[in-house]
Amino acid sequence: MSVHDKNDGNNEAQDTPDFDDDFQGKLDDLFVWRRDVRNFRTDPVSDELIDELLDAAALAPSVGNSQPWRFVSVEQDERREQIRGIFASCNREALEDYRGEKAKLYASLKLAGLKQAPVHLAVFVDTSTQTGSGLGRKTMPETLQYSTVLAVHTLWLAARARGIGVGWVSILDPEEVRAVLDVPDSWELVGYLCVGYPVEEHAVPELVRQGWQDRDNAARILHKR
Amino acid sequence: MSVHDKNDGNNEAQDTPDFDDDFQGKLDDLFVWRRDVRNFRTDPVSDELIDELLDAAALAPSVGNSQPWRFVSVEQDERREQIRGIFASCNREALEDYRGEKAKLYASLKLAGLKQAPVHLAVFVDTSTQTGSGLGRKTMPETLQYSTVLAVHTLWLAARARGIGVGWVSILDPEEVRAVLDVPDSWELVGYLCVGYPVEEHAVPELVRQGWQDRDNAARILHKR
Repeated sequence: MSVHDKNDGNNEAQDTPDFDDDFQGKLDDLFVWRRDVRNFRTDPVSDELIDELLDAAALAPSVGNSQPWRFVSVEQDERREQIRGIFASCNREALEDYRGEKAKLYASLKLAGLKQAPVHLAVFVDTSTQTGSGLGRKTMPETLQYSTVLAVHTLWLAARARGIGVGWVSILDPEEVRAVLDVPDSWELVGYLCVGYPVEEHAVPELVRQGWQDRDNAARILHKR
Repeated sequence: MSVHDKNDGNNEAQDTPDFDDDFQGKLDDLFVWRRDVRNFRTDPVSDELIDELLDAAALAPSVGNSQPWRFVSVEQDERREQIRGIFASCNREALEDYRGEKAKLYASLKLAGLKQAPVHLAVFVDTSTQTGSGLGRKTMPETLQYSTVLAVHTLWLAARARGIGVGWVSILDPEEVRAVLDVPDSWELVGYLCVGYPVEEHAVPELVRQGWQDRDNAARILHKR
């Protein structure tokens, strides 16, 4: 049964699932072991699995139920090469802000992902969508972009649960990516995802392991007002 | 064992978890049964549970591991009343765009959430954070906001797995909320969350059930390039 079958109709006939302690513990494990993957095996990911991931993404929350995410599978070698070219150019500029070898190391790891990953998904938000009739986004129009991020994260978790890794590449010029992929003007790039089986599984972020950035206690404080 | 204990140190001593078919199915159920909750029971949610949710949120992915999310628990009656006032004012303006009773109905449901929910969490992004040294966000600075959205979604799923509902309120003027909550100028509102035990559990979004907006096939297409 696909996740969509489960979601059709009303739930009169459906049992409320029991999310027991065992599931809660495994969900925490999923959060711990989800990684931003940079090193991929080149084995293909089946179309069926990609379909399952898109089914999951479609269940993400969205403002006014606008479902504004648009997924583009980048398959042509020439376009992938152009994307890598955009990355290389943006990365050169970004690296001018850093001293030392460390930043260059991480950048090279990301580029490796763009070369090895069997699946490339560019994720856009359709800023012109009328779906949801604009409900809930007058004062905070950026909730349309945020809804798309929620779909990316849903896909990411569904992927990790199936042993598939996702790496989010943000060192790209969004307008240039849009042009290379020939999508409507109203589509705005939210993220570019490398997808494939990871070379290794790990519980600790690579940026922590490499000494770039550890956990930040400021992010864990509950401020009270 | 808290999720953070699991994530400390390296994983040499940790077993890679087995996310089997049973877990994958239950994770799909979680995506299906997660709801944007509008009707809350007024029973309190324990501090321990809120702590668990913040632990989970802290595991979210973030650009350059910047962890820019900042959670504010809004506890004072006077401040909550001011937030409801901001909502009422923004909602009046938003409703001018709609005809008929439908939009008014949904708006009133959201307001009910702001009155009933025992826990209010305002979620900000610290746009001035130096954590992560700016890695990965030069060409797409909005990834800082997106990272905060990923933390919200992680909290949301961890909550639902524990039977706790979350409702995301976006009909608010972000600057006014910032002023009421007396947070630093560099903090920008990403979302305002009502948190508590839901009155009902459901697999179908309320906006679908009420006929506002059904599933959009455009969101499920895999475009190829």
